[in-house]
Amino acid sequence: MHRALVTGGAGFIGSTLADRLAADGVEVVVLDDFRTGYRAFVADLLERPNASLVEGDVLDPEALSRAMDGVDTVFHLQANADVRFGLDHPQRDLEQNTIATSNVLEAMRAAGAKRIVFSSTGSAYGEPTTFPTPETEAFPIQTSLYGASKAAGEGLISAYCHGYGFTGVVYRFVSILGERYTHGHVFDFYRALKRDPSKLRVLGDGRQEKSYLYVQDCVNGILTGLAAQDGPGFEVYNLGSDETLVVDDSVARITARMGVTPEIEHAGGARGWIGDSPLIQLDCTKIRALGWKPQLTLGEAIDRTLDWFEAHPEIVLETSPA
Amino acid sequence: MHRALVTGGAGFIGSTLADRLAADGVEVVVLDDFRTGYRAFVADLLERPNASLVEGDVLDPEALSRAMDGVDTVFHLQANADVRFGLDHPQRDLEQNTIATSNVLEAMRAAGAKRIVFSSTGSAYGEPTTFPTPETEAFPIQTSLYGASKAAGEGLISAYCHGYGFTGVVYRFVSILGERYTHGHVFDFYRALKRDPSKLRVLGDGRQEKSYLYVQDCVNGILTGLAAQDGPGFEVYNLGSDETLVVDDSVARITARMGVTPEIEHAGGARGWIGDSPLIQLDCTKIRALGWKPQLTLGEAIDRTLDWFEAHPEIVLETSPA
Repeated sequence: MHRALVTGGAGFIGSTLADRLAADGVEVVVLDDFRTGYRAFVADLLERPNASLVEGDVLDPEALSRAMDGVDTVFHLQANADVRFGLDHPQRDLEQNTIATSNVLEAMRAAGAKRIVFSSTGSAYGEPTTFPTPETEAFPIQTSLYGASKAAGEGLISAYCHGYGFTGVVYRFVSILGERYTHGHVFDFYRALKRDPSKLRVLGDGRQEKSYLYVQDCVNGILTGLAAQDGPGFEVYNLGSDETLVVDDSVARITARMGVTPEIEHAGGARGWIGDSPLIQLDCTKIRALGWKPQLTLGEAIDRTLDWFEAHPEIVLETSPA
Repeated sequence: MHRALVTGGAGFIGSTLADRLAADGVEVVVLDDFRTGYRAFVADLLERPNASLVEGDVLDPEALSRAMDGVDTVFHLQANADVRFGLDHPQRDLEQNTIATSNVLEAMRAAGAKRIVFSSTGSAYGEPTTFPTPETEAFPIQTSLYGASKAAGEGLISAYCHGYGFTGVVYRFVSILGERYTHGHVFDFYRALKRDPSKLRVLGDGRQEKSYLYVQDCVNGILTGLAAQDGPGFEVYNLGSDETLVVDDSVARITARMGVTPEIEHAGGARGWIGDSPLIQLDCTKIRALGWKPQLTLGEAIDRTLDWFEAHPEIVLETSPA
């Protein structure tokens, strides 16, 4: 890898990955429109001689083409990651996760770049019947527009690998936590408790079981699977922890760390929202067989996230939720 | 079902289905832009008082909205069915099969229509490892843009069923044959042999094993699965025959019926084109459990197709290939 493009490179996972690539000596191009990315996340990176920024949207062919110049590997992390509100604007996931991926693939084809890494999601399994869920789980029945749009992105990449000799490595993530985490329920809980530490409303019945992964473990996993890919082809890896945590236990960990004792109100129902999965636990045997394993426990990942929140009130408390 | 919209209703399967619905007393609206549909296929239909036409494209929101008026059930059959040439224009499948399906779903939501039938494809399995392939085959690795775009359409419909209480019935078809069949390799073979009966070039090595289904059996299957669907939900059915036919055997049946003895030239390779499946055989236990079974053998379906070709040279020989 000589020159890499990171779409969504000013976002949570994107900027963490971009930092790592630049530190490893790769020339890094960040493409971001700063709608949900933060300038602060790439400020240090862009001081480096081997990092540059193209400000724009992957839906803008001109910006995309400019960002693609000389690139051999694309980490396509830009996405609408707003899983819960898909039903409020049902074509946003299609545009930002499926059509955007098609645009990236076309820009790669035009520029001669043939290696793509894609951030998919455990939600692409819909509601699977096997736990932990392996990559070869049954043909999914999608339960969210987010999952559907990411599965569609995977399918496009796979067809490009087969049809044009691309190399594609897809990761189905659990929820990622850590420094720069700026959306999702741990973020929402923290902000709500900062506003009012006396009570907390939790979507669902609090018994949904989730898996999390620390962002540096995620970046290590991404690079591990990519390094194992030798030549054209298509591989999918689950990327998560073997642990799960029920929502109420996450809440307990968060409130303990924050030193608050709110009254917990459950909104009720087995799912936090329509399309929410009551249980996400991915079978990560495939990526572990390459020698990867997470360095942090779920609890440690939550603690790191909270410590970062405390150190960055200017981002965490000032931002309007994405 | 009171009033049904058939997108692609002037096409091969769409017009056959529209005829059947109208004969059953359903009010039928045909939406077609006649790019690949034929006015001749809906001429008789449109004489009926319970059938009407909206001329336009599903990518045109205004035409779609007009066609949706008062409709309770949508048979979304409009598609780019040009499986072999996806790599020549890689965003066409996305537009016509995925984005178009999203547009149809949005128009349904706006109009209050909540029941959709979708023509997917056995190609959505990519290259499966189980034969005959059941609906619950492993999470597919797409090998064609066509398969990827149809799988993406399925995912969208499934998410709408889960999120908005829609009813979705998806059929993964094998190749459909019969009266009004106007694209695909039987069509191409026939036209080539009419031009020059002395030789025939066959893509691949002639050993690819395909499954076919007669169009009236297909329409019966569509209506059988739909009738079994009671209230909101999402179901997928394979729709095909238990028989398969090797390409060379199809060629032999075609040439015998046509009374020609061409020299057969094989282009070579296990696949007819990139993204072609060397073997398609769907496990149709699920739809058969509802009492459906095909009435015609594969050979009989081929014969009916050839007889229709002979009777309609003005369509079969005059048309430029889609």
